[in-house]
This record gives sequence, C-alpha cells and structure tokens, in this order.
Amino acid sequence: MCQPIRVSAKTSAPPVCVLGLGLIGGSLLRAAAAAGRTVWGWNRSVGSVDEARADGYDAGTDLRAALTRAAETDAIVVIAVPEPALDDVLTHVAALAPNCTLTDVVSVKGSVLDAVRRVGLAAHFVGGHPMAGTARSGWSAGDGALFRGAVWVVAAEDDTNPAAWTSVAGLALDCGSVVVPAGAEEHDCAVARISHLPHLLAEALAVTAASGGDLALALAAGSYRDGTRVASTAPSLVRAMCEANAAALTVALDEAVALLTAARDALDATGSTETLVEAGHAARVRHDELDRWDITDIEVGALGWAGHLRDAGRRGGALRAL
Amino acid sequence: MCQPIRVSAKTSAPPVCVLGLGLIGGSLLRAAAAAGRTVWGWNRSVGSVDEARADGYDAGTDLRAALTRAAETDAIVVIAVPEPALDDVLTHVAALAPNCTLTDVVSVKGSVLDAVRRVGLAAHFVGGHPMAGTARSGWSAGDGALFRGAVWVVAAEDDTNPAAWTSVAGLALDCGSVVVPAGAEEHDCAVARISHLPHLLAEALAVTAASGGDLALALAAGSYRDGTRVASTAPSLVRAMCEANAAALTVALDEAVALLTAARDALDATGSTETLVEAGHAARVRHDELDRWDITDIEVGALGWAGHLRDAGRRGGALRAL
Repeated sequence: MCQPIRVSAKTSAPPVCVLGLGLIGGSLLRAAAAAGRTVWGWNRSVGSVDEARADGYDAGTDLRAALTRAAETDAIVVIAVPEPALDDVLTHVAALAPNCTLTDVVSVKGSVLDAVRRVGLAAHFVGGHPMAGTARSGWSAGDGALFRGAVWVVAAEDDTNPAAWTSVAGLALDCGSVVVPAGAEEHDCAVARISHLPHLLAEALAVTAASGGDLALALAAGSYRDGTRVASTAPSLVRAMCEANAAALTVALDEAVALLTAARDALDATGSTETLVEAGHAARVRHDELDRWDITDIEVGALGWAGHLRDAGRRGGALRAL
Repeated sequence: MCQPIRVSAKTSAPPVCVLGLGLIGGSLLRAAAAAGRTVWGWNRSVGSVDEARADGYDAGTDLRAALTRAAETDAIVVIAVPEPALDDVLTHVAALAPNCTLTDVVSVKGSVLDAVRRVGLAAHFVGGHPMAGTARSGWSAGDGALFRGAVWVVAAEDDTNPAAWTSVAGLALDCGSVVVPAGAEEHDCAVARISHLPHLLAEALAVTAASGGDLALALAAGSYRDGTRVASTAPSLVRAMCEANAAALTVALDEAVALLTAARDALDATGSTETLVEAGHAARVRHDELDRWDITDIEVGALGWAGHLRDAGRRGGALRAL
C-alpha cells in the first residue's frame, strides 16, 4: 500500500534551524533555503523576524517553538547569536533539542566549545566559522551568496562525533563554501592574526589619521580607506570577537607592535624601512601564491580521522566535497 | 591677410612635459591628452616609452630633447620620476628649462622642495601630489581616469609664484581632480598619517598573519585582504615614500604603537578593547561625514593668498574650478 517516496539528496539533507538572524545567520538561512534545505529561523528581536518574513522566509521570535521543531525533525541547530547571548541560547538548546547536531558561526571557537561543554552538549557539537562578512550587520545586510567560494572552518576535535561533523560540513558545502578542518585552539590563534588583529590595526589607523585633522582626512585615499574599512564595523561586534579571543589576540598584537617598533627605530636610526617592507611584501606574496589543495583521502570516522583532518588543514588542504 | 585663429580654452592651456612614465606619470600623460593638452613624455628606460608609443602617445628617452621642447613652448614640466632619480632630473631641468613652470607628483613635498631649492628652481616651482594610486606600477598600470574625483594637493608656500600655482592647479583640474591647497610641511605630516602609516601597518599585518602558517593564510578573508592590500606594492616604491618622510612618519608610528600597546595592555588586564574600538569607529565615521566645501572667494596673487588657501585647505576646503 505505502509506496516508498523517492527523495532527492537535497530534500533528504537534514533541515536547518538558525538561531539569530543577523548578517551571518540571515545569510545562512537564505543560502540553505537556496540549496533546497528546509530551514527556519529564530531571532530575539521582532524587527529582523518581520524583515525575514517579508522576504518570504520562515522565521519567528519563539525560541521554544523553533527548538521543539528542531528536535522533532532531527534538524541541525545553528547558533548565530552574538557572543553575549550564547549561554542563554545554549541553555534552551540543552533543554529542548539536546540530541540535535549543533554548530555555530561565532568567530572564536574555544570559548564556544567551553560554553557548549558547560551545558553538556559536546556530544553532538561541531564548531563552525564561515570566513565571510561585511562591515554591515543585520538581516537586511545578509546575502545568500555571502559564503560562495569562502572558507568555512569546521572544527575537528579528537572527541568530535563523525556523523555530526559530516552533517555540518555538508551544510557548509551546500552554502557554497570550501571546508577547512581545524582544531578550536589553532583556529583561534589563526583568526587572531588574520581577522582580529586587522580590526585593531584598522581602529588604530583611523584614530591616528583623524589626529591629523580635517586636512589629513581630506587627503585620505585608497590606502587609508582599505586600511580602515573594518573600523566601520559596529564596535559591539568588533569587541565581542576580539575580547572572546583575548589570549591569542594579545600574542598577535605583541608581534605586530614589535615589528612596528623595530621599523620605527630603524627609520629613526638609519632612515631605512627595508626590513619590514621587504618582509611584508614577501608575506603578502606568500598568501597570494598559497596552493589550496583538495583533501580527498580521509574517511571521516576512521581511526584518527580528526587528527588527520587537522593536519591536512594545517598544510593548506580543504574539502570541496564529502 | 593673416586671419586670427580661434583657439579654445583647452588648446590654449599650456603644453605639458611629463618626466617619468610610471603609474602616475603615465596616467597624467593620458589624462592631460584626454583634456586636449599638447603633452609629451620622457622615460629613462625604453620599455615604458615603447609601450606609451604603442598606445599612441608622444614619448621618448631623450631628456635633453624633451626639456628643450618644454623651454621652447613654455610647457609645464612635471617631475614623475622615483625619488632616487629626482636630483639628476632636476639638474637637467635647471640647465635646459629653468623658466618653465615646474611641478611634481611625488608623495613627499618637503624633500622635493629642498631639492628644487638646491638647484635654484624654486621661483617657478609648485609642489603637487595627486592622492591616487594602485598597488600596481609602470606604464601599463596607468589609467587616464585615475585622477578623476581624486584630491590633488597643490602646495602653496608664502613665496609661491601665483601664475605658476594657477597653471599647476589648472592641470590638476583638467585631469578631473579637486585641488586641495596645503603647505609642504603640513602636507607631509598629513600623508604620514593617511598614506605612509597605512603602508607600514599593512606590512606588519602581512608578516604577523604569515607567522600563523598556512592555516592562518588559508583562513585570511576580507579584513586581511583589505588590511594588507598595499603590501602588494613594490617595496622600492613603499620605501621611497616612507623614507623620504621619516620625521613625520616616526611621529605617526609612535602614535599608532602607543594606541596598540594601550589596547594590548587593557585587553590583558581587563579583557576590554572598548577604548580603541570606540575611538576607531568614531574616527572612521568622522572621515565618512567630512564635508568638503568649495573654496571660491580667494583670489590667487592677492595679498596673503597662499596663507588664505592653506587655511582653507586645513578647514576641509577644496577648489573645483579656478
């Protein structure tokens, strides 16, 4: 009597429950929907929910309803709330959807992993971090194409659940990203250098330029604009990510300050900026010439898989398919 | 018998002799030609000359011929060679075209003014600095639209020749720029903050990021790319401008290092980055909201004109017409 229903790979992929509909969560909701996923979103404030609904998406302000539906449908739950709201949302997940695959899109992975462990959700948790963004924020700034071609870090710890890892990596790939595996701690050290430090350098440049008065600001052109672009980001967002990664960021800041101080002293003593300028140019060239090779030979779940993935990520590897 | 020939304002504008056909000189040659000026270029190496000729421009490697023609036609001579070649080119100008209006497009004005004074060419010299560029260099990187909408600083000193000033400002306006008047010293202090400091911050960021290894470089996204863009610039060009402005750049570096050190210490002691992040955001907003008003009421050549122009530039004023 009951004929089996033929489902496509897309429609059999797990549904997605996105908690937080700002720039990243809102973009993820759009991207997952475009990939054919069943997806719904929750946001604390009604403004973003109304905007999402007006754009035709399934969204609401009832966290209990969103998580109950996630538990009933075995959805992937994505935490996309600002850092300060993390603990409260995790408490609700622990109460209402403790067996769902859980991931996040927060830019610091160690502190999220700690918070997840505190509420006992580590068994199904896989940290995530799409390396994409703009200086704008909120639902209206979102874009379903934001993650296309971007790197999406999917954290692989020794105790990570392989099925959950595959599920989260599949979502990242569905959103158009390439997946770079990394451990939470090494991820945080890396993003301190390539994301959080650039924000503080941009702030310092903006302040130093403005100290030159209106003449300096009137002359500001390309190098100023690019160098200060991320200083346009809402201070609360910059502070949240920098302060959650304080230990690693302090190390990166110390290195940058040491380089600048040495350059300043050399300029003063010898008139030369050669050491810093040559090293900086070579470093940027190294970035531009980085070869991102495809990880194809690691079976998720096989003995030592997480360590093998982390090692591949450290050597510049990425997954383009599962 | 001889009918007067009716000439347009464009064709009666002085011809232009561009010395150096790199990014800026090559762009200026194109822009001045597009504005209807008679224009020819000189470059030491034959490669750029051949490229310019292939693109239909009048260019050669004979400095004596270029300057003799300038003297015969009362052309504006534009120095667009790299800083190290400056003295040699100025010596030729002093010998062959000492009465031509002379300007330059070098990014540091104090050292050029000193060099011009050493060869006795100050009477007809007006320093210039178009605030435009890219990380690329050479004739092929040039673009006749590079200066469109850009700020072009035209230096006004107390002893500047008003006719020469008007002539150089006219060339900048013909190239599509707005003219900001400034003294050489205040210009150099301003560009240390908005152009030379950004270059050294970009170099320091590139080095600190690369110290994180291939994982960090693989995760590098928008904030890294924007923050290090100018580290792609040829080291020789970065060094030339930074080292020619050592005194002002040292002051700017000290301020930036002090801000970063204070932020590092606050992050370590209190976990907060509030002071720097709020100040940086406010400074960038101040830049974005800067009102560039039109200078219309200063007669060049009238008593105290140069000081009045400098004062207007300091208060955010610019000329869009003469």
